[in-house]
Amino acid sequence: MKSLHEKIVKEGKVLSDTVLKVDSFLNHQIDPSLMKQIGDEFASRFADAGITKILTIESSGIAPAMMAGLNLGVPVIFARKRKSVTLKDNLFTSSVHSFTKNETNDISVSKEFINEDDVVLIIDDFLANGQAVLGLTDILDQAGATLAGVGIVIEKGFQSGGKMIRNSGIRVESLAIISSLKNGEVEFLEEVTVS
Amino acid sequence: MKSLHEKIVKEGKVLSDTVLKVDSFLNHQIDPSLMKQIGDEFASRFADAGITKILTIESSGIAPAMMAGLNLGVPVIFARKRKSVTLKDNLFTSSVHSFTKNETNDISVSKEFINEDDVVLIIDDFLANGQAVLGLTDILDQAGATLAGVGIVIEKGFQSGGKMIRNSGIRVESLAIISSLKNGEVEFLEEVTVS
Repeated sequence: MKSLHEKIVKEGKVLSDTVLKVDSFLNHQIDPSLMKQIGDEFASRFADAGITKILTIESSGIAPAMMAGLNLGVPVIFARKRKSVTLKDNLFTSSVHSFTKNETNDISVSKEFINEDDVVLIIDDFLANGQAVLGLTDILDQAGATLAGVGIVIEKGFQSGGKMIRNSGIRVESLAIISSLKNGEVEFLEEVTVS
Repeated sequence: MKSLHEKIVKEGKVLSDTVLKVDSFLNHQIDPSLMKQIGDEFASRFADAGITKILTIESSGIAPAMMAGLNLGVPVIFARKRKSVTLKDNLFTSSVHSFTKNETNDISVSKEFINEDDVVLIIDDFLANGQAVLGLTDILDQAGATLAGVGIVIEKGFQSGGKMIRNSGIRVESLAIISSLKNGEVEFLEEVTVS
């Protein structure tokens, strides 16, 4: 997705060979217009998949998921990393290990909102080791829902998550796939095509 | 805002005299179409305020803030409740006490994204005791930015936050103001008018 590639090149900060900081448009400050384009692109790619719900995880997945949900006309559910006063019973729960933060969190989704009739699109901001997606698919398995596929804003193609998930037969659509962050430079896996 | 009032009456669950659960469209599952209407309403009310940035707080503020930002054509920043690998230095920080969760969190915003030239609209999902808004205004004070006002999706009018913030001279626009949750019933402060 050309506008996303350009934004990453222009504003992304390479902090190390594995860490890309995109706090200016995705993870802290958010660019609503770009999120709209991203949501529309996910909606276009999964237009014929019969999606009934979108599932993401707080916090950075919410903006792109919301814009895709607006386009597709379906509700968005964000898995919570912490239980709250109003969300503590009747939950699907899974564990997600974050290598970046070096911690394991339980994520939870209310049983009220996903069931075996749902066809679900998972959306997240980053795909690296794939642990968040695994946790979300585990929740869908518990619910007996159908997974239509996974939409990712930025995939770190040099880490193992994308391969692992695709090898398990799941459709993954990543709008930008980074092949390398070495020498402080962002390199993309695919050719940049005009979208 | 009529569609919001109707949604609250139809789907809100009164858990106690002070707790309203709106997990089906705002705090866990999100209704993107309603969020779009909410964002457009905030944008309309603050259309002439010269807004340059919207500031919210993760996670439930992100969806309405995003839609307002899309309409106004300005970036959205969400204050983080936890420091992350890519967000740990060069921060404005304030403390926010949550009476609902009975805990105090530091919230942080990168100094990169708000400065003294900014005119900022604060958006949040709920206004109860006003602690989150106080923390966000404290951050704006640290940045030397101008506060245009506060946009709230649901205000608990029977709690003290709205009065405290309005009394300090800040413009507060709440799209639904609840006067009482007693006897398991939602009562609104104002007449429901067709928007």
